[in-house]
Amino acid sequence: MASDTSEAASSTPDLKLQFAPFSSALEAGFWHQLTQKKLNDYRLDESPKSIKGYYYNGDPLGLPTRLTLEFSAFEVDGPTPARCCLATGTLYNTNTLDAFKTTDKKALLEKEAKEIWDAIQSGAALKDPSILCKFILLTFADLKKYHFYYWFCFPALCFPEGIKIIQQPSSLEQVFSAKQITALQEAYAVLCVKRGTTAEPYFLMKYTADTVHMASLEDWDTFITDTKTVTVGVYDPCTLSQHPGWPLRNLLVLLASRWGSTLDTVEVLCFRDQTLQGSRSIQHSVIFQIKLPVIPLNSACPKSVGWEKNPKGAMGPRMVNLSECMDPKRLAESSVDLNLKLMRWRLVPSLDLDKVVSTKCLLLGAGTLGCNVARTLMGWGVRRITFVDNAKISYSNPVRQPLYEFEDCLGGGKAKATAAVDRLTKIFPGVIAEGYNMSIPMPGHPVDFSEATLSQAQKDVELLEKLISEHDVIFLLMDTRESRWLPTVIAASKRKLVVNSALGFDTFVVMRHGLKKPPVSQSVSAGADSSTSCSSASSSSTTPAGSAPSVPASSLFSNIPGHKLGCYFCNDVVAPGDSTRDRTLDQQCTVSRPGLAMIAGALAVELMVSILQHSEGGYAVASSSDDRMNEPPTSLGLVPHQIRGFLSRFDNVLPASMAFDKCTACSPIQLHIVV
Amino acid sequence: MASDTSEAASSTPDLKLQFAPFSSALEAGFWHQLTQKKLNDYRLDESPKSIKGYYYNGDPLGLPTRLTLEFSAFEVDGPTPARCCLATGTLYNTNTLDAFKTTDKKALLEKEAKEIWDAIQSGAALKDPSILCKFILLTFADLKKYHFYYWFCFPALCFPEGIKIIQQPSSLEQVFSAKQITALQEAYAVLCVKRGTTAEPYFLMKYTADTVHMASLEDWDTFITDTKTVTVGVYDPCTLSQHPGWPLRNLLVLLASRWGSTLDTVEVLCFRDQTLQGSRSIQHSVIFQIKLPVIPLNSACPKSVGWEKNPKGAMGPRMVNLSECMDPKRLAESSVDLNLKLMRWRLVPSLDLDKVVSTKCLLLGAGTLGCNVARTLMGWGVRRITFVDNAKISYSNPVRQPLYEFEDCLGGGKAKATAAVDRLTKIFPGVIAEGYNMSIPMPGHPVDFSEATLSQAQKDVELLEKLISEHDVIFLLMDTRESRWLPTVIAASKRKLVVNSALGFDTFVVMRHGLKKPPVSQSVSAGADSSTSCSSASSSSTTPAGSAPSVPASSLFSNIPGHKLGCYFCNDVVAPGDSTRDRTLDQQCTVSRPGLAMIAGALAVELMVSILQHSEGGYAVASSSDDRMNEPPTSLGLVPHQIRGFLSRFDNVLPASMAFDKCTACSPIQLHIVV
Repeated sequence: MASDTSEAASSTPDLKLQFAPFSSALEAGFWHQLTQKKLNDYRLDESPKSIKGYYYNGDPLGLPTRLTLEFSAFEVDGPTPARCCLATGTLYNTNTLDAFKTTDKKALLEKEAKEIWDAIQSGAALKDPSILCKFILLTFADLKKYHFYYWFCFPALCFPEGIKIIQQPSSLEQVFSAKQITALQEAYAVLCVKRGTTAEPYFLMKYTADTVHMASLEDWDTFITDTKTVTVGVYDPCTLSQHPGWPLRNLLVLLASRWGSTLDTVEVLCFRDQTLQGSRSIQHSVIFQIKLPVIPLNSACPKSVGWEKNPKGAMGPRMVNLSECMDPKRLAESSVDLNLKLMRWRLVPSLDLDKVVSTKCLLLGAGTLGCNVARTLMGWGVRRITFVDNAKISYSNPVRQPLYEFEDCLGGGKAKATAAVDRLTKIFPGVIAEGYNMSIPMPGHPVDFSEATLSQAQKDVELLEKLISEHDVIFLLMDTRESRWLPTVIAASKRKLVVNSALGFDTFVVMRHGLKKPPVSQSVSAGADSSTSCSSASSSSTTPAGSAPSVPASSLFSNIPGHKLGCYFCNDVVAPGDSTRDRTLDQQCTVSRPGLAMIAGALAVELMVSILQHSEGGYAVASSSDDRMNEPPTSLGLVPHQIRGFLSRFDNVLPASMAFDKCTACSPIQLHIVV
Repeated sequence: MASDTSEAASSTPDLKLQFAPFSSALEAGFWHQLTQKKLNDYRLDESPKSIKGYYYNGDPLGLPTRLTLEFSAFEVDGPTPARCCLATGTLYNTNTLDAFKTTDKKALLEKEAKEIWDAIQSGAALKDPSILCKFILLTFADLKKYHFYYWFCFPALCFPEGIKIIQQPSSLEQVFSAKQITALQEAYAVLCVKRGTTAEPYFLMKYTADTVHMASLEDWDTFITDTKTVTVGVYDPCTLSQHPGWPLRNLLVLLASRWGSTLDTVEVLCFRDQTLQGSRSIQHSVIFQIKLPVIPLNSACPKSVGWEKNPKGAMGPRMVNLSECMDPKRLAESSVDLNLKLMRWRLVPSLDLDKVVSTKCLLLGAGTLGCNVARTLMGWGVRRITFVDNAKISYSNPVRQPLYEFEDCLGGGKAKATAAVDRLTKIFPGVIAEGYNMSIPMPGHPVDFSEATLSQAQKDVELLEKLISEHDVIFLLMDTRESRWLPTVIAASKRKLVVNSALGFDTFVVMRHGLKKPPVSQSVSAGADSSTSCSSASSSSTTPAGSAPSVPASSLFSNIPGHKLGCYFCNDVVAPGDSTRDRTLDQQCTVSRPGLAMIAGALAVELMVSILQHSEGGYAVASSSDDRMNEPPTSLGLVPHQIRGFLSRFDNVLPASMAFDKCTACSPIQLHIVV
């Protein structure tokens, strides 16, 4: 068993006292909590942090003397586990491995040792003896790999010449009678109650053949009447029969410094509550006598030791790789949040990630656009993603629709909506994805009037309404104009934020639909509804949804508030018809440059996030191209109405247009008919 | 067995002649070839196309009378298979299912029938009797699903009253002696040789007990001397003992129209070369006699029939679904090309797809950018993609790096370079992808000087040089500045097109490096090299690579030719150092808005494609933002030097800058030292 060889170097081992050093025991929960602290609180802050650990004296024989840090280490004021002693510590978490390596360990130790010394000199250590059992933890957390580098230090002030043993350690049962042992046990319990702790680290003791009395260190002057032989007790985590554990060291320095000149022999009781041969008792405690050297009060701080050796026995840091032993799914979850949280550390401190992550997104269309939108949502940490699509995966899809693979095309092709869900789960098991293999009812595509078909169409409409109700943001990502109509109408009536994207060959549009304000008469119920809507509804405008704008629609205006913005159909003079009928092949599928859908899909999500970060959400005034020079309305930038992109010119413009009061999809007349 | 009921309706079956109709036999090879024709030649052209089929008379009993179309159907002038008769046809391939359904089938049939009638009237059918055996094929090819809709028509002119049988059909062996049969067989062989065919569809015949003579239809006037009983022969694909096949029909109309008034009895030999009871012989041919009605010459075209019934026996089209029986991997290959070819049909007829598809791309970095670049390349049909990366997949990667999944992170994570290859193959088995799990040597990251490490670094440099030599376009997609240095130097020295992309938090750059011209003294060897380079090297500028620009670098200029453009390092005054050393976590990983890499990755590939489509390739003059109003230099648009994007403003600018003559990466001095 390792012992403190620095003490042993200049003396005969059997005459000088040796201490069993602490082994640091850092549980996975500690590292998990450190990860959270680093991501959410510390971020780039490298200043020292107070943490705590504890030690226990009930271990069976053979276990090393451990100082344990678990998830609770960061709650310094939190409770200490039963029958454990608190150890207070200082965490130095560096931002880089390099800083970790180059930190001046000697200086850290000396600083901490000086504090202990000062507390001994001032008497503060008498009032709070846990100061005598401090530690330093130097860490670097590589949160990308879940590699944690660390180095522990348990500062101990030294006696340059060591401590002479007068009477070798014996088991308590060899020295004390059963009656004395019982009395000792009771006295300790009384002391703990008196001190309000479950385990008192140090105590003073007097005993006779029948009685045992205990007092805390601060009661020295009244309690110790005979200084010829003073008995002190230490709550000892060590299990070795011939050695005390580390906590005794600084206590002995305290005694030597404060009362050394008056002391002749010091008797030490290593109070242990071990389990031996199946029975638990303090009879296995160890008792011995020493002769303490004198350390003059107000002398310089003694030399100190304490950096822990690594498992190879050398002075050096340790590394724990938790990527393998942590639950992979939980690992994935926290890893996914990492990049997002990193954004806030330095770049966008005001970013409200929860607002993004908790947004429930409904993707109508799981094709080229739908796949790219879903992937970008995953990148933003969005957990609730629902797909609606009635198509099957064909052989041409996987190279352009990044949720599908060749195998999904076999046997006629899997349904896109459900295959997309499977893929999201494979990418990130923490996602909550759903898929509905259904078609979106379209005007101009008459159903045949058989009862079964009519009933199915009705069911489809009802399900679509339900889905739109249950989500916060509705993405329109279909490949036909008219399939966007019904969702536009329903989402407008339910005041849901709609983000719409459509592709040409090398052009695209990404737009938000105007977000209608609740009618004044319904403001109470609408208020209740707003918790599920994407807008924080703090706009002061009171224009009811029904008020027709007095200016012509479809023109470019600046400063259009969100509730007056147009929808996809506002610029149209014709109602949506059947655009798939009689389309040639290059019209049937969206023939577009392959990069276009990735760009439009990414922008659709980025637009959504920018809107969510705006204090007025979907009611935010639309930014236009002209606003590019001005102060942006959110920390993420502009919140345009439309982004129209031209790949051939690598250019985007940001038009904004007013809602058309006779729009076939979003006008109050239309909504009145439909709702 | 189906027979022509339209003829039988008004007469007693056993007295009127009935014909076995053709069954269309369209082989998978035909549909495959139609797919190719549609994609590459016809595109949206719906005009009628000449195709061909053939029929055979050697089938065993029981097989339907088939008209076969196979992959050769589109080579009208190609050879006809041995012992087969040619049938010429007209293909009407519609662009939509709707056009297919609404095509006026009656009009098509009447048009074709009229042509046959006109050929009979003019005598053209005598010279080329294959005119009598024509067909129409109406198709719609749904190339996304590999569903082929079709309807066949074998136009037959009708005798309104039917044809009266005078002598019931008999097997030839019952009517002819063995000697006659042998003579008949020889006479047919002689006729075929004389006509230069392997199978003559129609012939005239005279015979005695010992001899058989044959002549072609056009020799009627000299060959037929006695018109009381005229014997005509037809190469008969039918196997029924009591019925002739369809080809006889229009022959009888020809006879009735041209010579009907002079004919009394017509004897018909259905020449068959069938296999019966294991032996092959013409003795199973059928012979019978009929009385032909007269059709006056120059009368109106008789009524016609011929649209094929579907398998249910109703008049209607057929559909064949080849998605399941075609080899899925080949299906995937042709499907992937579909969207690309669709672009050319209407939108970009000048698009040189082969140039894109055959480009060999080296992706240095298989992270966020690398994955998105690879996906966009796949969308463009690029088949050769090679990854270089030395990282392993970590838990935070899959949501942002679209080639990886959760499972790839387990057990410490797979190597990105090889996992990316696996994923590409899963997406599209036709891709030829390779992955190199290696690090790119970097300046400022000193290797330790052990022999093993030095030797590995040397090997890495050599492999990198080899890879750059073997590819056409080098993508720099790493997450550090300095790792881009060595590839920049090597690619510049080898005159390879470099596309470079780098991300900030919400900004990105996508740029092409200037493409050096070969030094004048090396122009011969450089010429040989240019076949593997991405530039067509047609620029007339003779500025050697070494000429230092007399204007300051890093400014904005218009009209900078490709060989004078700067590289990533041209704007820098310092040499690349170790930027990873002592970086904090948010600097170590590229913290960026999740949509950014998708946009930058897509633009990097689209920029490459635009450059490849420019006649001067990498030497093309750089387009700038100002050029957005001008006529674009390629059908795909601008070929900028740099695209710098600002997600917060949804804006891109297109700066261009000159090469710096003391650049640490691409200057002639640097290249001289390195190469």
